[in-house]
Amino acid sequence: MRRLRINISYDGSNYGGWQIQPNRDSIQSQIENALNTITNEPIRIHASGRTDAGVHARKQVAHFDIEKTITNKKLKYGLNSLLPPDIRINNVMDVPKGFHARFDVKEKEYRYFIYNGRILSPFDRQYKLLIKKKLDIPAIKEAASFLTGKHDFSAFTANARREVDSTVREITDIQIIQNGNTIVISAKSKGFLYKMVRSIAGYLIRVGLHELPSNSTAEILQSRCRSEVVKTAPAKGLFLWNVKY
Amino acid sequence: MRRLRINISYDGSNYGGWQIQPNRDSIQSQIENALNTITNEPIRIHASGRTDAGVHARKQVAHFDIEKTITNKKLKYGLNSLLPPDIRINNVMDVPKGFHARFDVKEKEYRYFIYNGRILSPFDRQYKLLIKKKLDIPAIKEAASFLTGKHDFSAFTANARREVDSTVREITDIQIIQNGNTIVISAKSKGFLYKMVRSIAGYLIRVGLHELPSNSTAEILQSRCRSEVVKTAPAKGLFLWNVKY
Repeated sequence: MRRLRINISYDGSNYGGWQIQPNRDSIQSQIENALNTITNEPIRIHASGRTDAGVHARKQVAHFDIEKTITNKKLKYGLNSLLPPDIRINNVMDVPKGFHARFDVKEKEYRYFIYNGRILSPFDRQYKLLIKKKLDIPAIKEAASFLTGKHDFSAFTANARREVDSTVREITDIQIIQNGNTIVISAKSKGFLYKMVRSIAGYLIRVGLHELPSNSTAEILQSRCRSEVVKTAPAKGLFLWNVKY
Repeated sequence: MRRLRINISYDGSNYGGWQIQPNRDSIQSQIENALNTITNEPIRIHASGRTDAGVHARKQVAHFDIEKTITNKKLKYGLNSLLPPDIRINNVMDVPKGFHARFDVKEKEYRYFIYNGRILSPFDRQYKLLIKKKLDIPAIKEAASFLTGKHDFSAFTANARREVDSTVREITDIQIIQNGNTIVISAKSKGFLYKMVRSIAGYLIRVGLHELPSNSTAEILQSRCRSEVVKTAPAKGLFLWNVKY
């Protein structure tokens, strides 16, 4: 038996998220079904983390165990032949038996894409959030700067009770990148809470719209309580961008 | 009555093409229906040319006549509110009564997008053609260079009889642009024949795959006959890129 690691890209638009669930198609089930067709083994795959319905991945990582004798190259080719074109396996590699795609993560990066202009291109419609009113980028940068470091992010998660462990997380880096009318919020951490990046994006957008002052971050963090002040930004703008081990 | 010109972007993936037709949704019918809702007038719109099912437009241009008193800004806003997000009106402007979006074209540019690599990104799946085998770009450039100028393009159209006038067209410029693994064929002309750019792309891809010699262009043009040698490349890689007046 070998343990394999796969790097995956997907357009989440047509899925109910990463995880297998009733009634909606999932990325996990698509990949497991393709693996089952190739190997005839009931393979379970384990991702670096779940992504919600409509969230995309430039690079998701998963691992699984396989009995079948097949080269990694042929397995990759076979999977991509069976999978729909909105899910691609970019890499298949051997990893030690002890490797775990979720527990061994050193750093994850999410990026949230905003189009701050009048008209959202048809080609960006499922990948960026349109904000028509001019955003105050310096204000967003200031508010974001207070999010870096180790904090209790209860105020920036959708449902803290989902988490079995602590609601303390450490954001190692947060960047606001402006490229023409496109604004990207990049956040890096070893691990994020449920809907944490979308909550941060929703909060920073309100700051950029002057609906909240740019110096409110510390107070909101300290409240340790999710309130109506922090909105969850729509899924379509969010990409799991990178996972490091 | 005023004559208006609109600049339109669309993702053609979900449409049976520009033109109104039975059984499939069209970009023209979407826009005409939206105009009808706003004005209550039976407005017909006239584009710079039709695009086929699955072909995209970065910039399509159309004109129409309108009785209703409404500012161009409000009309644009209203249209974009009513239209699906894969069709966007980027601009509405007054033009002289004599303006005609099709007859007055000075130059049209089409671009055909190829991804020459192993794996097509999920985010490019509807916008680029995947060619896995390495393409010979110098050969493509040589073959393409013989297409510029005035020729009878009967060998590069799907059905010459569709055209009421001549099958002679002048390609004013053709460029092969390489950007990483992406190869773009840009072709400019005052007018193209039916499926002409996709035929040129299909031919150049065969040259790049060494299925045809790079010096066969003149001979194929001179045959003035469409044969199996020239394949029509799939619609999804094609964009109407620009229209000049």
